[in-house]
Amino acid sequence: MSSSASPLLVVGSVGLDTVETRAGKKTDVLGGAASYFSVAASFLAPVRLTGVVGTDFPDDHTKLFEAHAVDLAGLERVPGKTFRWSGVYAPDFSTRTTLDTQLNVFSDFRPKLPAAWADSPYVFLANIDPVLQLSVLEQTEKAGKKPKFVACDTMNFWIEGKRADLLNLLERVDMLLLNDEEARQLSGQANLPAAARAIRALGPRAVVIKRGDAGALLFHEGGVFAAPAFPIENVVDPTGAGDSFGGGFMGWIAREGDTSPATIRTAMIMGSVLASFSVEDFSLDRFKRLDLAQIRERFTAFADLVHFEKIKL
Amino acid sequence: MSSSASPLLVVGSVGLDTVETRAGKKTDVLGGAASYFSVAASFLAPVRLTGVVGTDFPDDHTKLFEAHAVDLAGLERVPGKTFRWSGVYAPDFSTRTTLDTQLNVFSDFRPKLPAAWADSPYVFLANIDPVLQLSVLEQTEKAGKKPKFVACDTMNFWIEGKRADLLNLLERVDMLLLNDEEARQLSGQANLPAAARAIRALGPRAVVIKRGDAGALLFHEGGVFAAPAFPIENVVDPTGAGDSFGGGFMGWIAREGDTSPATIRTAMIMGSVLASFSVEDFSLDRFKRLDLAQIRERFTAFADLVHFEKIKL
Repeated sequence: MSSSASPLLVVGSVGLDTVETRAGKKTDVLGGAASYFSVAASFLAPVRLTGVVGTDFPDDHTKLFEAHAVDLAGLERVPGKTFRWSGVYAPDFSTRTTLDTQLNVFSDFRPKLPAAWADSPYVFLANIDPVLQLSVLEQTEKAGKKPKFVACDTMNFWIEGKRADLLNLLERVDMLLLNDEEARQLSGQANLPAAARAIRALGPRAVVIKRGDAGALLFHEGGVFAAPAFPIENVVDPTGAGDSFGGGFMGWIAREGDTSPATIRTAMIMGSVLASFSVEDFSLDRFKRLDLAQIRERFTAFADLVHFEKIKL
Repeated sequence: MSSSASPLLVVGSVGLDTVETRAGKKTDVLGGAASYFSVAASFLAPVRLTGVVGTDFPDDHTKLFEAHAVDLAGLERVPGKTFRWSGVYAPDFSTRTTLDTQLNVFSDFRPKLPAAWADSPYVFLANIDPVLQLSVLEQTEKAGKKPKFVACDTMNFWIEGKRADLLNLLERVDMLLLNDEEARQLSGQANLPAAARAIRALGPRAVVIKRGDAGALLFHEGGVFAAPAFPIENVVDPTGAGDSFGGGFMGWIAREGDTSPATIRTAMIMGSVLASFSVEDFSLDRFKRLDLAQIRERFTAFADLVHFEKIKL
């Protein structure tokens, strides 16, 4: 990573996934939004991870984070079992079915930032209870240093069940990252540009709508930006693609240390790059054999994917 | 249009649509794939339209074609009623329901090219029975002058019911244009890059997969190209968007007179430009108040929509 990159704080789930796709089945592999986010971002910026695992959390997973220089000072290890999720994807990846969710130690998670982390300039609040997302913001603000840029994710469960808290949070973040169905649910607007406009009126100056293999749309003060998804023929496991997108996105922002419209556009592509690698193997396995040269090469491939000449008309 | 543009032949349906969307209801308005295609393409190249209408076809619609210099020498007017389609869109445009289809004079349609049109260098075979699409190709080839570039569209009905004829046709066209579900059905591949590869193996050197508001993908010898859909907040009527895309695409090819990878990429954007205008009003109404300056402006907006800077990494 760049030596001048700013620290990037992420708060979210770290878990053990059991996943079945047409490519095979993996049991108790590393999962969780904060895991994908951290390792994806680690190629670009120093990452600070806040989360919780149980005593059963395998050392190998801890070592993977350490190999990517992810700072684990905020990763609590408490008595009990680690958060577990299990799911199966349709052969064509059009749907996924959750077979089991065990919150385990995650059900009592109360994020506590290490004191030295309260000044983190870039903050990503992965998809957890908006009350907890707010508590993290309060911990950074109590330290007297407002972060430069805060982005958050959310999901249907909170939009439906904790709407007031979520709206409270949205007034205080710079960017909301969510998928198309969540954007429609939150805004009550079926049309995505209309949904984004309604969400921006709630607080965030930027909204990113993730659309899976249809790419992602950014709505912000620099206009609208469309990032394609990279056409991947051999998808192995789509789990964590959205969180890897978030990691690539925020990693680029932290690396550049600015949030200008141009940087945010590039961050959209960097998010898409990391997401495109993520789906090429189970769990975070693709990241284990990823390097900056491959990231650079795929970034260039994205530029080619959308390139067309100016015209005379 | 450019004075040096080559003639563009289209064969397909011309009909009367009754459409209901959340924006309102229109009865017996101009519709049909060849109608949208022709008028969209007319901004870029001289269009030759082959189709059939009944004696009830309103003069106003004929005048619209004439206003766009669409050559109607191949548009037969025969005793009987014009092809009619009626449908209603869900308020969020996620689905559309066909209420009624009356083939009428279209059921006996046997395309006959005017003799002077057999040398048309650019040919678009809109979605009709592949046997008829083949008969058009044979009429151009009998004239001894193979077209420079032939593209065709198709649909689930023919993929299922006339597969052998369709495969025969595909061996003889340069490009197939179809939507994502049709690509999956034709190829038996759920993954779109895999589907495109399988379809290219059937004959066409280029495949365009239309994905509605997720844009379009081009697979050809110049690699993969992703064209976004333009985010339109006030969609009035999506009918004919795919055919307008085809018109913009082929219109650009005919205008430029070449099918290099670079020209085909630009054609993808020009298709997207015309499609984006098409949905802004019912029927072909948006085209009635469209001009080259607006097309140029939206083309530039597309360039901005996907623009991002090169990076140092």
